[in-house]
Amino acid sequence: MRVLGVDPGLTRCGVGVVEGVAGRPLTMIGVGVVRTPADADLGHRLVAIEQGIEEWLDEHRPEFVAVERVFSQHNVRTVMGTAQASAVALLCASRRGIPVALHTPSEVKAAVTGSGRADKAQVGAMVTRLLRLSAPPKPADAADALALAICHIWRAPAQNRLQRAVALHTAKAPKGRTA
Amino acid sequence: MRVLGVDPGLTRCGVGVVEGVAGRPLTMIGVGVVRTPADADLGHRLVAIEQGIEEWLDEHRPEFVAVERVFSQHNVRTVMGTAQASAVALLCASRRGIPVALHTPSEVKAAVTGSGRADKAQVGAMVTRLLRLSAPPKPADAADALALAICHIWRAPAQNRLQRAVALHTAKAPKGRTA
Repeated sequence: MRVLGVDPGLTRCGVGVVEGVAGRPLTMIGVGVVRTPADADLGHRLVAIEQGIEEWLDEHRPEFVAVERVFSQHNVRTVMGTAQASAVALLCASRRGIPVALHTPSEVKAAVTGSGRADKAQVGAMVTRLLRLSAPPKPADAADALALAICHIWRAPAQNRLQRAVALHTAKAPKGRTA
Repeated sequence: MRVLGVDPGLTRCGVGVVEGVAGRPLTMIGVGVVRTPADADLGHRLVAIEQGIEEWLDEHRPEFVAVERVFSQHNVRTVMGTAQASAVALLCASRRGIPVALHTPSEVKAAVTGSGRADKAQVGAMVTRLLRLSAPPKPADAADALALAICHIWRAPAQNRLQRAVALHTAKAPKGRTA
């Protein structure tokens, strides 16, 4: 199973591809950050994020995309940007019929460190160990994207297979309409 | 000047096209709502909104897109969906090099009714009068989309011309990069 994890953000959108199955050693296929300049206007930043994510999907052909679920209890301005960047990631994946799962930050932390309240350093250390890397991926957004992908591989493999079948089916018959 | 107004939302995304210039009678070119089913998954709802907005852009070829600026002091869950729907509208317009302006709800209300605290009925009544319609557009999201377009036409025509030149220029040279 190959998963693209996306830690959404307007300034730095972490992306990481992990391959493997639950219970076996995992392999990092790629990791990076899609950046957009803070002084660009919002529309152009979203276009740049779309282009960046499309490149990752083209190059790595993931079967699943895992995106961090955004909450609004954090800083108000950041959250709106994060929600908008996550919308672009969801759109890019769903347009291709790739199933998308949303995982909360605490689900991801719990999956890779055993604690939902682990800090950035702990997540980075475990990602490094689990993927047998020589050093923690930088910046933290990149490590978080890999952690999301790992979390997704480890959670409910049966559910993933079902979701993939549903996503492929519904991609052929979009449900929206214009009235 | 032809403007597409978008009142973003996941369940109902209001869209309205108005043509005219400040100081002259305005004309409604089209109005409607892009709907997505509440029980569909988020990714597919965003894809459906993208398809709906693309159809409006294809059919009406607006020179500007005006989107409601989202604030997060409202209901938390609604706001995240609104932010994500607005991201899709911004993305669709910016991808085509169409300049996008964000207007706050109070700017829009003040533009069409003279009061930033006007209610839905008042906005609907003024939209009906200003566009010489026989009845207020339904639902309110559709009327709000028209009010956004009117607000945009009336605010700073000179600024619109400048913004259009910049948007066309930057669309040719997107600023994002993948690292």
